[in-house]
Amino acid sequence: MGKRIMIALGGNAIKQPDELGTTEEQMKNVATACGQIAEISRQGFEIIITHGNGPQVGNLAIQQEQAQELVPAQPLVILGSMTQGQIGYMMQQSLRNLMGEESIEVVTVVTQVLVDRDDPDFTDPHKPVGPFYKEEEAIQLKIEKGWTIRKVRPNGDRQWRRVVPSPVPLKIVEGKAVRKMVDAGMIVIASGGGGIPVILNEEGKLEGVDAVIDKDRAGEILAEDVGAGIFLILTDVDSVKLDYGKPTEKPIQRMTVEKARTYAREGHFLPGSMGPKVEACITFIEHGGERAIITSLAKAVNALEGKAGTTITRN
Amino acid sequence: MGKRIMIALGGNAIKQPDELGTTEEQMKNVATACGQIAEISRQGFEIIITHGNGPQVGNLAIQQEQAQELVPAQPLVILGSMTQGQIGYMMQQSLRNLMGEESIEVVTVVTQVLVDRDDPDFTDPHKPVGPFYKEEEAIQLKIEKGWTIRKVRPNGDRQWRRVVPSPVPLKIVEGKAVRKMVDAGMIVIASGGGGIPVILNEEGKLEGVDAVIDKDRAGEILAEDVGAGIFLILTDVDSVKLDYGKPTEKPIQRMTVEKARTYAREGHFLPGSMGPKVEACITFIEHGGERAIITSLAKAVNALEGKAGTTITRN
Repeated sequence: MGKRIMIALGGNAIKQPDELGTTEEQMKNVATACGQIAEISRQGFEIIITHGNGPQVGNLAIQQEQAQELVPAQPLVILGSMTQGQIGYMMQQSLRNLMGEESIEVVTVVTQVLVDRDDPDFTDPHKPVGPFYKEEEAIQLKIEKGWTIRKVRPNGDRQWRRVVPSPVPLKIVEGKAVRKMVDAGMIVIASGGGGIPVILNEEGKLEGVDAVIDKDRAGEILAEDVGAGIFLILTDVDSVKLDYGKPTEKPIQRMTVEKARTYAREGHFLPGSMGPKVEACITFIEHGGERAIITSLAKAVNALEGKAGTTITRN
Repeated sequence: MGKRIMIALGGNAIKQPDELGTTEEQMKNVATACGQIAEISRQGFEIIITHGNGPQVGNLAIQQEQAQELVPAQPLVILGSMTQGQIGYMMQQSLRNLMGEESIEVVTVVTQVLVDRDDPDFTDPHKPVGPFYKEEEAIQLKIEKGWTIRKVRPNGDRQWRRVVPSPVPLKIVEGKAVRKMVDAGMIVIASGGGGIPVILNEEGKLEGVDAVIDKDRAGEILAEDVGAGIFLILTDVDSVKLDYGKPTEKPIQRMTVEKARTYAREGHFLPGSMGPKVEACITFIEHGGERAIITSLAKAVNALEGKAGTTITRN
């Protein structure tokens, strides 16, 4: 069990905030990330990967909008499925190239994630997606598309942005299939962007909804589905910090679930940022996982050896 | 072996030529196609599906272009990967809904298809993709993007279109993985749009190329990879015709590979249309397949029972 690892890759690992998002940039970033993953694979780990897709969905949303006089704009749920194909392709190719084309099967599985249609987030959405708008545009979009728009910047020309629900993931629809693939020796990329959010509608059928699922939370469920012993979250910082952003800031090397809970209660972790990552790790351990690690992409291999990052364990 | 079937679904089955391509339209068409596929599954067949993506790539290409001042346009190879996610998601969800959510695993696999970088089509491309342009626009794009542009309409305002290579598929990169999934009892959607075309570059690494692979040709290779006994091509017509388009036009119910070759030589099948479909069927049988069928979506179930469509066999 200790040799099966779920890796959750942050969205910035594929398109950095200061980049435009050309294919060349993204392929280069993917190659860097896959270099670390290939190294982990060489150490004998069985690997399942999930990844963010915020920047890619953002770009697609702008493209849909700019062409809407000519071509019907696809909803967010479809844009999510498109980015699973896009990022999956880039990672699949990069991993193959790094590991030798014949040595291992690398596959991306289009993944739906079930959420509750009565999730409270559907009535009070907060997750910003897509471009920033001027007030007039915001009002127009609210009327035309029924979007919820919020003021997310205190000043400037473009202060408004669409917000969507971020419901709690309940189940990975393709979870059992991913398990079989990992059991068969494949490296599997799944639940990209937190998965494509679906509800069970009134007829009991799966139906896509415009929402965004936290990729670490969905990744945690997938980690359980595949029986991973290790949950590795790769983000922008080397480790979790106490007193984050204060002069007394201090990295945490190890913490038990109990300590993590205490720190969370004391407000050491940012809500919307490190908070949900630590929360996903706590859930993972409480549901039977061996250890969870939060670190940066560059420190991934070292962190697995306990030489970097923050490790969370039961005791 | 006779119970494993490769189904190749035409692009028009998902977006019909007279439709705009809204998500609602496409979901409705996908549900119709999946109704037939679910019925085939209920009859005990093991199913692998491939599908066209021309209309979806076309729409994405227009969206990329319209937003290029704001967001970097992704190349054709990335648009192909996006449509694999998009169409895969729609089919995955529809099949689950039709077959009962828990009864069977349905997965879409992002699929690369290897082509020869020295394929003659790279120096003389003919496959039109994306929107139609005016002459000035065509010249501009030729200079800016290095595209090959051809005049594809004899008259009117927009006569020009980008053409790309359509190289011969050599190998499904994820073919072995798809085989394992089918063996494990999953319905697999793979090689969408003919697959994402890749070459082996000078360093022996996989690299995407802007090209379009014929989905029936790629589907035929995948059918061999998974050991399918039946290759079912679903297109716009109920059966292959002798003297197509002439007053003497006559549907073919059955033909041997030898007959099919003779008819092809005699020019009964349109190049670029029925020709390559019949060719893919011939290859399938010659490489060990039991029977190949060409028919329309609506006749799929009947054709499998030999009551409709055109069946091609060895003898």
